[in-house]
Amino acid sequence: MPKVLVIGGNAAGMTAAGRARRLDPGLEVTVLERGPHVSSSVCGTPYFISGDVPRAENLIRYTPEAFQERRGARVLTGVAAEKLDLSRRRVVARNLETGREIAFPYDRLLVATGYAPRRIEAAGAELGNIFSLANLSDALAIRSALERRPQRALLVGAGLVNLEMAESLSRRGVAVTMLEKCDHIVPGLDPEMADLVEAELARHGVAVWKGRSVRTFFGNPDGRVQSAWVSGIAEPVAADIVLVYIGVRPETGLARAAGIALGRSGAIAVSERLETSAPSIYAAGNCAETLHLVSNQPVANALGTAANKQGRVAGENLARVPAVFRGVLNTWVVRVFDAAVARTGLTEQEARACGFLPVAAQITAGARARYLGEEPVTLRAIADRASRRLLGVQAVGGGADKRVDVAAVALTAGMKVDEAAQLDLGYAPPYSQVWDPFLVAMNALLRYR
Amino acid sequence: MPKVLVIGGNAAGMTAAGRARRLDPGLEVTVLERGPHVSSSVCGTPYFISGDVPRAENLIRYTPEAFQERRGARVLTGVAAEKLDLSRRRVVARNLETGREIAFPYDRLLVATGYAPRRIEAAGAELGNIFSLANLSDALAIRSALERRPQRALLVGAGLVNLEMAESLSRRGVAVTMLEKCDHIVPGLDPEMADLVEAELARHGVAVWKGRSVRTFFGNPDGRVQSAWVSGIAEPVAADIVLVYIGVRPETGLARAAGIALGRSGAIAVSERLETSAPSIYAAGNCAETLHLVSNQPVANALGTAANKQGRVAGENLARVPAVFRGVLNTWVVRVFDAAVARTGLTEQEARACGFLPVAAQITAGARARYLGEEPVTLRAIADRASRRLLGVQAVGGGADKRVDVAAVALTAGMKVDEAAQLDLGYAPPYSQVWDPFLVAMNALLRYR
Repeated sequence: MPKVLVIGGNAAGMTAAGRARRLDPGLEVTVLERGPHVSSSVCGTPYFISGDVPRAENLIRYTPEAFQERRGARVLTGVAAEKLDLSRRRVVARNLETGREIAFPYDRLLVATGYAPRRIEAAGAELGNIFSLANLSDALAIRSALERRPQRALLVGAGLVNLEMAESLSRRGVAVTMLEKCDHIVPGLDPEMADLVEAELARHGVAVWKGRSVRTFFGNPDGRVQSAWVSGIAEPVAADIVLVYIGVRPETGLARAAGIALGRSGAIAVSERLETSAPSIYAAGNCAETLHLVSNQPVANALGTAANKQGRVAGENLARVPAVFRGVLNTWVVRVFDAAVARTGLTEQEARACGFLPVAAQITAGARARYLGEEPVTLRAIADRASRRLLGVQAVGGGADKRVDVAAVALTAGMKVDEAAQLDLGYAPPYSQVWDPFLVAMNALLRYR
Repeated sequence: MPKVLVIGGNAAGMTAAGRARRLDPGLEVTVLERGPHVSSSVCGTPYFISGDVPRAENLIRYTPEAFQERRGARVLTGVAAEKLDLSRRRVVARNLETGREIAFPYDRLLVATGYAPRRIEAAGAELGNIFSLANLSDALAIRSALERRPQRALLVGAGLVNLEMAESLSRRGVAVTMLEKCDHIVPGLDPEMADLVEAELARHGVAVWKGRSVRTFFGNPDGRVQSAWVSGIAEPVAADIVLVYIGVRPETGLARAAGIALGRSGAIAVSERLETSAPSIYAAGNCAETLHLVSNQPVANALGTAANKQGRVAGENLARVPAVFRGVLNTWVVRVFDAAVARTGLTEQEARACGFLPVAAQITAGARARYLGEEPVTLRAIADRASRRLLGVQAVGGGADKRVDVAAVALTAGMKVDEAAQLDLGYAPPYSQVWDPFLVAMNALLRYR
């Protein structure tokens, strides 16, 4: 019975384990997870913290026991892989409860170690009530900190997680200030679109400070944060809870130590079939490098959507059913209070950095008929001037998710603006306009002839 | 100054007139419209009848005067074109108010005469309170009939317009019975999906009778309908308002009489540039034939989305800016009470009729995270077994419009199921699941290897 070992019990690892067993019930599959939970929805944690999701269990798809029973793979939590022993085809791990070392032999190995949030370089960063939300355990700690009714939150970094947390904490009655060290919030949007998100935050009472970072956190006698010294602000800023989210990096330590090659992006280099440089070792999910389908450049991707798909592909290859993972567009969507915010492909800034000569069109149109309440959405569409190929779309407002998903398909197909402008999209007054906002944006791009 | 003449003042005609003038302000553009309104949203009329849209003017984008002032084209209403005189390059028309005949010379002509609803072959069909909703004038007549507070409506035909009218009339307190002569409602859906729509209608108190048609309408002494003799029902069915919508046919009389060629679909044959068989004469909108991008067969299309796009292309060619219209997927979406219902491409039945060997997968999945209230959506996806190409998608439920628009782009690109299953669609708990329902449907199709 071939032994399949999976390191990491989240999106990619669990999907792969389940898929491999389904395709080849003759496999002996074991998953090692260092944390206490597997199969948890990290994307759902802001809604658990806000209280929309009542219990942590609602965010867990399978307990280890349920997964074992239903999918036939053994799942061990609290077990941290410490070393890949390639020559003896085994993984040395430690039971975090007992401290005991255990060796797990494998015939085929999947590294699905995910990402880790970047640490902030500021004195006092180890104080209590300073969190980085990266998994369900963090969410439980944050929700428990909210029991003590903090008054003022400082969110350091203005990426997706903190955008969601701004809403979650505001709805729990906490006054929120968001810091961003760059000159615009939301990396992954062009400044013109980020401004719309900033306005939405402001409309809901969130203070946004750009071009600023934390120098030092100060604590109270209990060892919990009570204020922060922020660059360019004379007085310390009061804050009794802090969420740091300044980006993530692929968790590659184990693979690197074993001599497995990393790619240019810093993530583990893999083939289309998700094979690493080491025989019989695969990597999938946010620790593995992938291809950006527009720029054609290797990227590290930190989204659960890609991790799940890669997990499926890895599971198929682990079961010796050949499958390939083509790549990503870094498509994402996030709700910021009343606005949907989404993007796919390349922003204008990214397109320029990738060597395109981008042109941009930004339009605002109704996501539904004006006589049914327009729900305006702003779209920013980027195309390559020379090839006329669509390169990316960003959207803020009503139905931003729909228009960006439409764009994602067009990008995958390498569609030119001319063809995208004639797409036969559905229309009825509650769902769109006769010229869908996506088509309005494409028509605006057509002006560049 | 070249004279451009446009017959028909709705989607295609008005779009073409405006576009031509914008591209070449040196053109003298005249639009002839037989009815009293131009630029009206037929798609919005059910919402006017329901009362959601308070005034008919809300559905009119431009009055003739406003269009003339803002777009520089002359618009004549109440003027019916009666003859195309190709040899003398003029159109003979009649002023419907004065009865006077007028001749309009042209250098370039656009026929944009749209469609006409099919007439019902039943005795008594000329009685009062029997309507076909095809334009704003019909909507005004229906809304005015509702002032007399009819109790029971009979909707003959279960296509899009009557689906919307079932909701509109129910919300006005009218008891609705819907008749369909086929064995399932909603032409354009496979029976398995039509059943879901029927259930939604039933949930809201609409009686649906399939396999039945009206033989005779009976009137009251005032000449208004009061009941109908329905096939297979012994007693006459009481009905004090009747809406007949049993399909449409392209309005081709003028073109046909002038010897302009029709296509296999019965609509006016046109090139990609929308040229008819007659020199300097174009046709656009629902009177013109177009290509179905999946079946590659000529079709007559009755949707405003295509008509607007064709109008734009016609306008460009009228202004001597070459442009082509590629074709359609017959994508549509409709709201039926609480459910979005949408489709694109080919149904399984249509695919088989077109010579494909279709396989179908039907799945139900949450349109948003289960812990935020799932909003289930059912998708039915059709693919060609031999080529693995996606052929069509139908959807009923939460976010059906989004998934069908995504499918429409994939169809336009000729995407295979394998590629469509890895599309990088956006995910956040309020908008989707980590595996979007579209991807779940594609994964289900992958089983057919």
